[in-house]
Amino acid sequence: MAGGKAGRVAIVMGSQSDWPTMRRAAAVLEELGVDHEARIVSAHRTPDRMADFAKGAADEGFSVIIAGAGGAAHLPGMVAAMTHLPVLGVPVKSKALSGQDSLLSIVQMPAGIPVGTLAIGEAGATNAGLLAASILATTDDALAGRLKAWRQAQTDRVAERPED
Amino acid sequence: MAGGKAGRVAIVMGSQSDWPTMRRAAAVLEELGVDHEARIVSAHRTPDRMADFAKGAADEGFSVIIAGAGGAAHLPGMVAAMTHLPVLGVPVKSKALSGQDSLLSIVQMPAGIPVGTLAIGEAGATNAGLLAASILATTDDALAGRLKAWRQAQTDRVAERPED
Amino acid sequence: MAGGKAGRVAIVMGSQSDWPTMRRAAAVLEELGVDHEARIVSAHRTPDRMADFAKGAADEGFSVIIAGAGGAAHLPGMVAAMTHLPVLGVPVKSKALSGQDSLLSIVQMPAGIPVGTLAIGEAGATNAGLLAASILATTDDALAGRLKAWRQAQTDRVAERPED
Amino acid sequence: MAGGKAGRVAIVMGSQSDWPTMRRAAAVLEELGVDHEARIVSAHRTPDRMADFAKGAADEGFSVIIAGAGGAAHLPGMVAAMTHLPVLGVPVKSKALSGQDSLLSIVQMPAGIPVGTLAIGEAGATNAGLLAASILATTDDALAGRLKAWRQAQTDRVAERPED
Amino acid sequence: MAGGKAGRVAIVMGSQSDWPTMRRAAAVLEELGVDHEARIVSAHRTPDRMADFAKGAADEGFSVIIAGAGGAAHLPGMVAAMTHLPVLGVPVKSKALSGQDSLLSIVQMPAGIPVGTLAIGEAGATNAGLLAASILATTDDALAGRLKAWRQAQTDRVAERPED
Amino acid sequence: MAGGKAGRVAIVMGSQSDWPTMRRAAAVLEELGVDHEARIVSAHRTPDRMADFAKGAADEGFSVIIAGAGGAAHLPGMVAAMTHLPVLGVPVKSKALSGQDSLLSIVQMPAGIPVGTLAIGEAGATNAGLLAASILATTDDALAGRLKAWRQAQTDRVAERPED
Amino acid sequence: MAGGKAGRVAIVMGSQSDWPTMRRAAAVLEELGVDHEARIVSAHRTPDRMADFAKGAADEGFSVIIAGAGGAAHLPGMVAAMTHLPVLGVPVKSKALSGQDSLLSIVQMPAGIPVGTLAIGEAGATNAGLLAASILATTDDALAGRLKAWRQAQTDRVAERPED
Amino acid sequence: MAGGKAGRVAIVMGSQSDWPTMRRAAAVLEELGVDHEARIVSAHRTPDRMADFAKGAADEGFSVIIAGAGGAAHLPGMVAAMTHLPVLGVPVKSKALSGQDSLLSIVQMPAGIPVGTLAIGEAGATNAGLLAASILATTDDALAGRLKAWRQAQTDRVAERPED
Repeated sequence: MAGGKAGRVAIVMGSQSDWPTMRRAAAVLEELGVDHEARIVSAHRTPDRMADFAKGAADEGFSVIIAGAGGAAHLPGMVAAMTHLPVLGVPVKSKALSGQDSLLSIVQMPAGIPVGTLAIGEAGATNAGLLAASILATTDDALAGRLKAWRQAQTDRVAERPED
Repeated sequence: MAGGKAGRVAIVMGSQSDWPTMRRAAAVLEELGVDHEARIVSAHRTPDRMADFAKGAADEGFSVIIAGAGGAAHLPGMVAAMTHLPVLGVPVKSKALSGQDSLLSIVQMPAGIPVGTLAIGEAGATNAGLLAASILATTDDALAGRLKAWRQAQTDRVAERPED
Repeated sequence: MAGGKAGRVAIVMGSQSDWPTMRRAAAVLEELGVDHEARIVSAHRTPDRMADFAKGAADEGFSVIIAGAGGAAHLPGMVAAMTHLPVLGVPVKSKALSGQDSLLSIVQMPAGIPVGTLAIGEAGATNAGLLAASILATTDDALAGRLKAWRQAQTDRVAERPED
Repeated sequence: MAGGKAGRVAIVMGSQSDWPTMRRAAAVLEELGVDHEARIVSAHRTPDRMADFAKGAADEGFSVIIAGAGGAAHLPGMVAAMTHLPVLGVPVKSKALSGQDSLLSIVQMPAGIPVGTLAIGEAGATNAGLLAASILATTDDALAGRLKAWRQAQTDRVAERPED
Repeated sequence: MAGGKAGRVAIVMGSQSDWPTMRRAAAVLEELGVDHEARIVSAHRTPDRMADFAKGAADEGFSVIIAGAGGAAHLPGMVAAMTHLPVLGVPVKSKALSGQDSLLSIVQMPAGIPVGTLAIGEAGATNAGLLAASILATTDDALAGRLKAWRQAQTDRVAERPED
Repeated sequence: MAGGKAGRVAIVMGSQSDWPTMRRAAAVLEELGVDHEARIVSAHRTPDRMADFAKGAADEGFSVIIAGAGGAAHLPGMVAAMTHLPVLGVPVKSKALSGQDSLLSIVQMPAGIPVGTLAIGEAGATNAGLLAASILATTDDALAGRLKAWRQAQTDRVAERPED
Repeated sequence: MAGGKAGRVAIVMGSQSDWPTMRRAAAVLEELGVDHEARIVSAHRTPDRMADFAKGAADEGFSVIIAGAGGAAHLPGMVAAMTHLPVLGVPVKSKALSGQDSLLSIVQMPAGIPVGTLAIGEAGATNAGLLAASILATTDDALAGRLKAWRQAQTDRVAERPED
Repeated sequence: MAGGKAGRVAIVMGSQSDWPTMRRAAAVLEELGVDHEARIVSAHRTPDRMADFAKGAADEGFSVIIAGAGGAAHLPGMVAAMTHLPVLGVPVKSKALSGQDSLLSIVQMPAGIPVGTLAIGEAGATNAGLLAASILATTDDALAGRLKAWRQAQTDRVAERPED
């Protein structure tokens, strides 16, 4: 991977309904100039597609996987079970329990299979994109530069005083 | 198994450490004369073994699957995603969150892939055995008779008054 | 039961206000060609009707009972206490606690009286219908075929990529 | 009931294992000279006995019913569904969820069937006894006097300063 | 008040904003012909008024007190600390925590000072009225009759089948 | 109060059983040379003593009040309702709910009557002492100096590396 | 600080979006004639600005700091780590978890670094203002007088009876 | 970083008491031959040391930071606020709330500053080590090989059947 170009990031999600949340990950990767690709891969409805994706992700050239899901959110953990790539999980806000179920289903993985979990909802999706970029930036100085600039701009945008 | 052909029940669990809980399911199936078999099938550490098991369970002659797991408990839901057999889930009590994570990870399945979830811990494992038996008993009168007798005996054991 | 026709499924609920949730169970059973019947049976307001229903359900020809209720949701557990048929519970979303009370009241049954519990709300009701069908399909090959086709169609409907 | 002697209090519980908690209710009624009787009545394992008890409680001369149960604690609510007597509920501490399930299953009753719920565990059982006494004391001046004296003694026992 | 002298019921609440909830208690007492009176008594903003009310409630002729409050809901417990009359608590739904704070603040009273707690929100207020009536009915046969009729009418209103 | 000597701190608690927690507040005030006094004042068992204490605290020369309680922890909020002095609340760990009830009962005060709430248990008691000291130190330079030294010593005690 | 004029209060918050909540603190300080100043200081986006603020707050003439934040709300605790001034924390209501995350992140500080935490949301912000005023009032008799008058007016505004 | 040797991993924690948990991260990095270093860096007690560490971590040659903390666990998020390196957070089990506070304080970071959060306690610490290794392995084929072997060995250790 080293050298010129940072690796690609896969953004997978359980269903179309997760996209309004997960597009935040795509958006921030876009801003940072990180190559990425979004797919629907349902752990429950398309388990074979999920296995094919997870097992083949490294060979497809992905370096980091972002997986978002809600409720009994099994996608991030199951993908992590079938790849040695870093997997980041985004708990999508669920209808009845506001994402508390999604969060626990993603973060409470047993020793041996890690999922780096972000916050519930859109903030978590944005941060998954940022964390994926920071992972790639560990060996891509240009990306590291863009990430630092993005962070600095964020800092600069904070006003001194609240306005009515 | 008695009678014509009530099916077999598979009891699967994520690790050896789930067995002290899950053996309760085996014990009650034993008492009721229902054929059963216990295996370790980890969604996270042995995803391929899990897929093989789930996809082949019907052909192996299983009629009902009981799956127990703790924490980010993906086993019941993932097995359910790969079989049309009825799957019953037992949330094993977890260290930090006492099984609240296990419960939500098992019960909050999305529309399309059901897991019939029982109580956290040993009571849930016993009840998974009983529910499996009641499922088989819908077409096995002899088993239905044994189940009713088991239930009646349970009722008869309830004392009239508490004792110091 | 074996042979030609699968058993009937009873769908009971505590009040008319549970119907918008519970009709999802009826809908999926309808799609799968499973005979079913919906009734209002309140554990708290009509305890005698509930007892009559639960005790007579097997003789009425029901093979599986789906029971939905919210809040201190006693209906599924009380029906289970008075029949040896498999009982599936659907926690209806409650006003103040979003169904967390309903879920715990249904799933945390003591050893001896099982209720196979599904997710909170509409997803749970759909899944109760599917689980009931899968139970009947254990001895009804035609239904098993329809169930597999339903599941396959669900899988086929999953798009490859999210759309804006 | 009015006139000389206050009514009797029934203390019912789901199983022998609830007695170490529920005996606190009996103890405080004993101290206050209120007639009481403890029975095991399981909503799940002895639903008929429960119905007989609840429907006949008024005719047996009970004026108030205290019901304790744990987990999916249906006993207080089901007894309340079958009597017009005041029913007080005690959530017994449960293994996995420390009585949070018991509390919600007892207190979240739908409009129409009240259960006056006390704290989880022994404090709740003691208070159920005190509340039952205060109910009877509304028309029994002698009991009211004893209750006030009990309360005063409790107040008098509070030390001025903590001791190492 | 029918009959000899079933007592009056006081309905107190922390603020005007609790009235939309608490009026349900008044409404059901009205339906049952039970004398009642509603007042605003804030534990936090009018502690002296609260003490005067609680200490004088018996002398004012109240037999039962219903107290509703939200958030850190201290009113029911503090009133109970200053009277030997039965106190029923209604957790009013709070803004951020949906009444979970109100519920725990009311129900988790220490041994010695009971508050019979009802469900969160309107159902709880209705049930507080019903429970107060059932308390008074223990020594008022006419009221007991009206209460039974009210309950029967509630049972009769339950339809047989859900309607679309 | 201004001038030489910082004001006194009152430490009140609902019962002797809170002392093992609350003595941490006394200990840290002792270390910082802040005058303090501990008393048992139960909101529920000694409401009059509580009212006398709270209303007279300013005249007794107290400048800050620390109040600890568990379960339906009403003491901090009720003291705050009867004084204009700053009141700090310590949620004592409760038996069934580990202090979650204590925390919500103390912190969720309505607008108008503040309680500055610290962490559950011993850490909270220590911090209540420190916060009381920091309040007094706003106008007592000598105490501010001792507080800064205490804080610096705490910082200095942090080792560079963990030891096995 | 002692002498004529009470100290200034700093109101800091993580972002502009916290202002609709935090302005309640400013409003009540305004009503009480307490000098105050509001700033945006983000622990996460402007950590250096935060450190500068916290370390310099005493020298800037602030006597009390109110800090509001939501989600993983680190601002109050981090400010408290870098000043010996009293710090009051306001948990701002968060999107997914309604401020439960904000509350725990603020209140559960380790022994050594206290944050006096108020209720979630607007009530908490108002109370932070009141508590800051009561802290300053410990050595400012004129402010104490205004605070008592504010409290009395609040008491006087409580109506006797609820109105439809 | 690319080329022969993978980057170093920093393991920081708030206090010595976190080490029994966090040493699991060190242990797994040791097994995988990843250079690492453990330090105590308290957000609350040594904020300056924390800032120095976080700002200098990249220059010290660290590529990934693992941060563990309990209660109001601010360390991971504050470190993340001051570096562009990937930060992984481990919620250490807390005394009263079993790590629920630690989890929410770490995972619920606002958009802009990500922390990849692992499970509560030892499993989370092990997984933080594994995730750090998988991050480094994205550009270190030898490490990727060792990681895959470690994972395979884990899979191979799973027995076929549970043993009594």
